[in-house]
Amino acid sequence: MPRTILLVGAGKSASYLIHYLLEESMAQDLVLRIADKEPDNLPEAVLRHDRSEVFQLDIADAPARREAVSQADIVISMLPPSLHLELAKDCLECERNLVTASYVSEGMRALDAEVRAKDLIFLNEMGLDPGIDHMSAMQVIDRIKSKGGELLLFESFTGGLVAPQSDTNLWNYKFTWNPRNVVLAGQGGAAKFIQEGTYKYIPYHKLFRRTEFLEIEGYGTFEVYANRDSLSYREAYGLQDALTLYRGTIRRVGYSRAWNIFVQLGMTDDSYQIANSQGMSYRDFTNLFLPYSPTDSVELKLRHYLKIDQDDILWGKLMELQLFDGDLKITQANASPARILQEILESSWTLGPEDQDMIVMYHKFGYSLGGKKHQMDAHMVVLGENPSLTAMAKTVGLPVAMGTLRILNGEVSARGVQIPISAEIYNPVIEGLAKNGIVFREVEKPYLGYNPDSVAS
Amino acid sequence: MPRTILLVGAGKSASYLIHYLLEESMAQDLVLRIADKEPDNLPEAVLRHDRSEVFQLDIADAPARREAVSQADIVISMLPPSLHLELAKDCLECERNLVTASYVSEGMRALDAEVRAKDLIFLNEMGLDPGIDHMSAMQVIDRIKSKGGELLLFESFTGGLVAPQSDTNLWNYKFTWNPRNVVLAGQGGAAKFIQEGTYKYIPYHKLFRRTEFLEIEGYGTFEVYANRDSLSYREAYGLQDALTLYRGTIRRVGYSRAWNIFVQLGMTDDSYQIANSQGMSYRDFTNLFLPYSPTDSVELKLRHYLKIDQDDILWGKLMELQLFDGDLKITQANASPARILQEILESSWTLGPEDQDMIVMYHKFGYSLGGKKHQMDAHMVVLGENPSLTAMAKTVGLPVAMGTLRILNGEVSARGVQIPISAEIYNPVIEGLAKNGIVFREVEKPYLGYNPDSVAS
Repeated sequence: MPRTILLVGAGKSASYLIHYLLEESMAQDLVLRIADKEPDNLPEAVLRHDRSEVFQLDIADAPARREAVSQADIVISMLPPSLHLELAKDCLECERNLVTASYVSEGMRALDAEVRAKDLIFLNEMGLDPGIDHMSAMQVIDRIKSKGGELLLFESFTGGLVAPQSDTNLWNYKFTWNPRNVVLAGQGGAAKFIQEGTYKYIPYHKLFRRTEFLEIEGYGTFEVYANRDSLSYREAYGLQDALTLYRGTIRRVGYSRAWNIFVQLGMTDDSYQIANSQGMSYRDFTNLFLPYSPTDSVELKLRHYLKIDQDDILWGKLMELQLFDGDLKITQANASPARILQEILESSWTLGPEDQDMIVMYHKFGYSLGGKKHQMDAHMVVLGENPSLTAMAKTVGLPVAMGTLRILNGEVSARGVQIPISAEIYNPVIEGLAKNGIVFREVEKPYLGYNPDSVAS
Repeated sequence: MPRTILLVGAGKSASYLIHYLLEESMAQDLVLRIADKEPDNLPEAVLRHDRSEVFQLDIADAPARREAVSQADIVISMLPPSLHLELAKDCLECERNLVTASYVSEGMRALDAEVRAKDLIFLNEMGLDPGIDHMSAMQVIDRIKSKGGELLLFESFTGGLVAPQSDTNLWNYKFTWNPRNVVLAGQGGAAKFIQEGTYKYIPYHKLFRRTEFLEIEGYGTFEVYANRDSLSYREAYGLQDALTLYRGTIRRVGYSRAWNIFVQLGMTDDSYQIANSQGMSYRDFTNLFLPYSPTDSVELKLRHYLKIDQDDILWGKLMELQLFDGDLKITQANASPARILQEILESSWTLGPEDQDMIVMYHKFGYSLGGKKHQMDAHMVVLGENPSLTAMAKTVGLPVAMGTLRILNGEVSARGVQIPISAEIYNPVIEGLAKNGIVFREVEKPYLGYNPDSVAS
């Protein structure tokens, strides 16, 4: 009798996940039931596969949701993060295990005792970031500790970028994931981290000016801006004594300096609505954030306000987005500045039909062992195939699929609300990823400690 | 039989209010009952006055509060804004009128129908700003309209500053009111206003770089930064058709440029707590917001980060506050950056025993009349006497006192939750203020419209 996997939510990010599970379906005797709001969007090959059952599901329809959960042996949620919780409660009721690629929310964490009591596991943060970052980091950290080493420094950076061959705009960036998250990146409070034993705080409006450089062999120079949450995994990773903990987001050099223009203008603000935004020109939108003048142009006001020389590449980046165009119109009504900026960026930064994306992850581990200080860097680069089979979908979907099969096959002993930081999960998954071309390259380095020479400002 | 006024809350800001009401107490046959948490702090002259009754009141003690309200003919609340509402409900229950100097809160507004139903008035925003600003502006606006003029422009600025003779630090500023409000000024969302028919938005981190200059005869040059709420009185003032509406806060020139340093560093952030702030040196606090370096000094890092030349007066302002002192310690535990900054500033910016404060208010009215455009500016300057008898206490307290007596004497016909924008209130109060040296000087000017030459950046 085949085992049934219920996948809820089958958007673009699920392409590799579905492909992998269907590939395994014969050998492992699986049926993959795919529930989606708009299941007709799935490729023919999925719709017609012998081992797939695709059906329409309105996630707000509780009886239908519960019925689907009860028929499955395990559940994968690829829904937007805010929708996991109802499904998780169904899983509790029907006593089914659950896998997600999302951060553990407060609501999810609160289910832990109940999940344990029913001898279940809800495995979250099982994608790329969070996901592969946890697993790859913990494998090295545990290895260092098992040799008797003590961690002094952990830095970890991830970026979803365009592949070099598709890197065709001045920003060296296109949207390969949720654009709204890119526009709102860094908002909601100061970035907090610890460097050489000292806490450091960066306010949002300085975040994109406190970048660091990163060299990746074969791919050139990148930059990193700090995540808000560098300290949140200190306990989980067992890094209470590390002097430096820093997590960041990778971009091509120059992106952050240009993005800072939007931050400084106030265009990333999502807290209020612009009256009458519909039909407003890009130029008038830009002018909302500049002083009134009866004579000066919007261009000159912006250059003067933010002190941008006309021959600065920053200026070219703004021109490329047509920010000063008086004919292009905003379509959204009463939208926030952030929503409008997103609309403007999407008209420039959407992946073309031939475009490939690229995932870059980079860890630095500093440790003392045998009276000496050491540093080991590990990094991974994954290239996408096309706008559907993206590196993002691959690096998010494969760990989810592999974790799901491990649980289904009874190879995971942990119970409760979990993230993938124990060897029973990370070892086989990292091995499985390597078979799919997702490989970390490790390089020993001289120990530098936190390196101030790489800091931009 | 004397009429009883109940004053709840008798802090420093109530000095003139109490003095005025006791002065009037014989002629108008009043008894002033003063309820405070710590009534012993009141001056002897108040405690011993024939017409005063001072008593201890815990504002959380509902029966005691209600008992006090029921014994009064009218109630004045000088409590912190968040505490008005309970008292307002007591006033409803006991059918007593109420006067406050605070903004109408959502909760207060919601009482309007009930207040009207009981034939009462709750007169709010009856201090300086809000208060005198409403009254002085509406008197001119109504006068212009009564002549057939149409308002094109209204700008209004207020500042609580130090008097020239007490202006002894590089910031040209000392705390003359609630220091916490000064530290948090401008936070909570973009400043919104309208200039020559165009909406404008300034994000917090640019607020102190978008200042305008203001000349006041006899007092020199000031600067203004935008308030968050320039549009909130558009309806109430009847200015729906005005092309320019701008409200701002007055400081001495250079204050905002220097304050911007704190904003840029993130020192005004009140959204998170600094672990172990107690005993941290001022220097270490400053270093929290700067990149780590094994070699560079905190001073150099800050100068480089914010691009401050050593001979810039900005630098002198930071040195004056001893921001780089390694011996001075923060006393508060687990405080937010904003709370810590306030502590540091209070050690420099507290009024000395001889210091006098100064209130400046400045309005600009642009209007068309008889086919021509006109401008009239009106301003007021009030100097304080000493750190107890401040211009702030005078300009807040006297309108409250005068409004209270008008209501008590049946000279106010308005009912419901009100602010002082009708002639029956503003005319007699402005007249009364003039008798106490609080006078607006009006000057006709050539109509400039919104003047971009005065804008700093």
